[in-house]
Order: sequence, then structure tokens, then C-alpha cells
Amino acid sequence: MPKLYIGNKNYSSWSMRPWVLMRQAGIAFDEVKVRFDSFAPDSQFKRSLQGISPAGKVPVLVDGPLVVWDSLAIAETLAEQYPAKQLWPQDPAARAQGRSACAEMHSGFTALRSHCPMNIEARLPDIGALVWRDQAGVRADVQRLVELWDALLQASGGPLLLGRFSIADAYFAPVCMRLITYGLPVPPHIAAYVERVRALPGVQDWIAGALAEQDFRAFEEPYRLQR
Amino acid sequence: MPKLYIGNKNYSSWSMRPWVLMRQAGIAFDEVKVRFDSFAPDSQFKRSLQGISPAGKVPVLVDGPLVVWDSLAIAETLAEQYPAKQLWPQDPAARAQGRSACAEMHSGFTALRSHCPMNIEARLPDIGALVWRDQAGVRADVQRLVELWDALLQASGGPLLLGRFSIADAYFAPVCMRLITYGLPVPPHIAAYVERVRALPGVQDWIAGALAEQDFRAFEEPYRLQR
Ligand SMILES: N[C@@H](CCC(=O)N[C@@H](CS)C(=O)NCC(=O)O)C(=O)O
Ligand SMILES: N[C@@H](CCC(=O)N[C@@H](CS)C(=O)NCC(=O)O)C(=O)O
Repeated sequence: MPKLYIGNKNYSSWSMRPWVLMRQAGIAFDEVKVRFDSFAPDSQFKRSLQGISPAGKVPVLVDGPLVVWDSLAIAETLAEQYPAKQLWPQDPAARAQGRSACAEMHSGFTALRSHCPMNIEARLPDIGALVWRDQAGVRADVQRLVELWDALLQASGGPLLLGRFSIADAYFAPVCMRLITYGLPVPPHIAAYVERVRALPGVQDWIAGALAEQDFRAFEEPYRLQR
Repeated sequence: MPKLYIGNKNYSSWSMRPWVLMRQAGIAFDEVKVRFDSFAPDSQFKRSLQGISPAGKVPVLVDGPLVVWDSLAIAETLAEQYPAKQLWPQDPAARAQGRSACAEMHSGFTALRSHCPMNIEARLPDIGALVWRDQAGVRADVQRLVELWDALLQASGGPLLLGRFSIADAYFAPVCMRLITYGLPVPPHIAAYVERVRALPGVQDWIAGALAEQDFRAFEEPYRLQR
């Protein structure tokens, strides 16, 4: 059985992607939670990952001789291992779009990521309004996101980015969480897509896990002193 | 014939990856140079990409109905289109390592990327020494790079990261250029790998193109007033 090492469900946006992908696609795996204490070299977190991930980060997928230590690499590996699940669409042009969108996410959207860290249980619309007013980079990231989702939804006909559920929806699920937590403004059809992602059983399961944690980690909480 | 849109060869690290990959692997393509003037919305650069790349960036691969607008997505698409070229190794565990390494590069090494922008024709060892002294993030990035390359070279037996030439070497070629330009200190066996990458015919061709440009772009030159 493959093992997926993840961080705190409330905070770990990178971990959420492969977990939601596997859960939603019905790929069985054992979950190993590596709790965030700190990311210092002598932290329990780093010590737990020693000998498992050479990068010292989560997520990590371990499956027999395979060790995959990055969320996008995990997604590509699973797509290859489970062709019947069609984690990417079969149409090459749609697959190229999906891959481009996920890789663009992987290397970009840094303003949104740094100013609006994932925090599933929190509701921070006032912080979101301040960030929206003051951070042009966040506004530009959200604008690009809206354009990107819009184009994919139009090309595929929806209801999800590439039609049926795919790696792309798992990949953008953490961004959907951020839009909700910070109440960032998006057009109605984009808000409707966010709601469809939130309603996916695999996403619901992750959210339930995040809400159950009740584990306040100050270094992931730039905007709150406590829960 | 596939078309690859790229930026200035001297500066565009993202463009270098798929270009070197295709050239070195012997995949024929037409190159379309989109010169960097600025990245402002009304720049010639952005106007040239309108209707081609939804993200407004280079590289972009256009191949019939396929439009791939991110370097990592281009690499995966080519690996799929040209199985005989073995752009990824055939061994699944080695492939998982290669994918993890490239995706880690794609989403990380931000300190090295921002403090040591690619500038193939320049030799800036004094700047490199200052950056090395003052930027702990750059030292940490180079340390991780050395560990990563070391592990891959040991696992594969070399001479390249995954044995023979693969996407991974194309992916790290721009980093090799940065190490050379800024004279950043790495152990001898890592410097030897950097030299092996520089000597690849596909890399040599890119470097020759970069040297021929003689096109000073101030916004890509934090450390020089002129060539
Ligand atoms: N490129 C990696 C990034 C993973 C990542 O940054 N994970 C965070 C948790 S969400 C982490 O483990 N951080 C530890 C650290 O930065 O030291 C991926 O996509 O998996
Ligand atoms: N994730 C993209 C990044 C591409 C990228 O940032 N390209 C730069 C040139 S090296 C660019 O086009 N920048 C234009 C801009 O930022 O507006 C990829 O891997 O292809």
C-alpha cells in the first residue's frame, strides 16, 4: 500500500493536493501525518522526515522502491501508475492545458501564497479586504486565476476545470480554500466553481480532518494570536 | 513542425530548459524569439504573446492543437510525444527521482533565482562573493542543490543526473550557468558535473546564441550599467 506523508491538514497546502487527488480518485493509501512543530533543522518535523524525504518537506509518496518528494511529481507518477483512473484527460490538447495550468501554479502565484496562507478553519474576511486593498500582487494573481479557470471551464464545458475531476482540480483545491478563508472577490461563475470543488467528497474529507485537528501553529498564523 | 517561443537567450532561464531539451534530444522545432523589451502590459513582448500564451510568458510550445505554456509542462508533454527519445529514464524509481528533482526546482530555489539571475555572457564573481557572504538563502539553496545532485549522481552512476541525458539535466542547465557566472563555490565533483552540462552540444548551441545577442536589457541587469 502506498504511504503518503503529509503535514497539518489545516495548513499544508502542498500536502492537500496529492491527498485529495488520491482520495477523490479512489486510490487507496496509508496516511502518515508529520505534525508541524517548526521547520528548524532540529525540529521533530525535520527529524521525522530524515531518511524519507531528501528535501525535508511534505508531501512525500513512498510506494515500494519509489520515493516521490514533490506534489506535482506525485501527481504525474500517479497518472502513470493508474491509467484507468484518467487523472489527466485523454485528449492531448486538454492534457497539455491541464499540465500547463498545474505547472504555472507550482512555480507562480507567490503573492497569493505568501499573503493568504492556507488556514482552512479560519474565516478572515477583514484581513482579506486589507490584503486586497494593499497588495497589487495578490490582485494580479487572482485576476490571472480567474482568467485561467475561465478559459479551462469554457474549453472543457465544466463542471470541473478539465470536465470531470482531474489533477487540475486537486491542484487548485488549496487556492479555493484561500479564496474562502480570506473572502477574496471573484465573479459568480468562479465562486460557483470554488463551491463545486469544496463539495467534492475527497475535499470534504480533507476539510473534516483539518477542522478536527484544532492545532494552532503560530508560525503558520500571521493574522491570529489564537484560534 | 512544433514551434517554441523563447525569450532572450542570455537571460531567459525558463526558455533555456525546453530549448536545450529538444536540441540535445534531436527533436526538430522552429524557434520564435520574443525579445524582452519589458514585461509591462503594453510592451512589445506582451503584445507578441497575445493570442499565443494565456499566461503572457515564455517559453510556449505550439504543436498543432497543443499549446503548452510552462517549461515543466512542455517537458512532460515531449516525454509523452517522443517515447523513443527516453527523455525520462525507463526505470520507474529513477523517473520518480527525476520528476521530484525538476518539480522541486520549479517551485523552489527562489533565493538563488532572485539574487543570481541568469546572465550567460557576464562574469560576476565579485558580486557572487558578496551574495555568498550576505545571503543565507542563497547558501542554503546551493547546499540543497549539491545534496540533490550528489544523490542523483550516486544513484545513477552518472555521468549526468539520471545516467544519460534527460529532462533533469535540461532543467538544471540554467542553474549551472548561474554557478559559473557568479563563481559560487561547489565541491569539485559538482563543478565537474556543471562542466559536463556546459559541454553538451545542445547547451553549447544555446550559449553561442546567447553570446551572439549582445542585447543589454537593464531590467535583467541588477549588477551592471552596461555590457
Ligand atoms: N515543491 C514542494 C513543496 C513542499 C513544501 O514546501 N511543503 C511545506 C509544507 S506545506 C514544507 O514541508 N515545508 C518545510 C520547510 O519549508 O522546511 C511540493 O510541491 O511538494
Ligand atoms: N512557470 C513558467 C515561468 C515562465 C517565466 O516566468 N518566463 C519569464 C521569462 S524567463 C517571462 O516570460 N516573464 C514575463 C513576465 O513575468 O511577465 C515556466 O516554467 O515556463
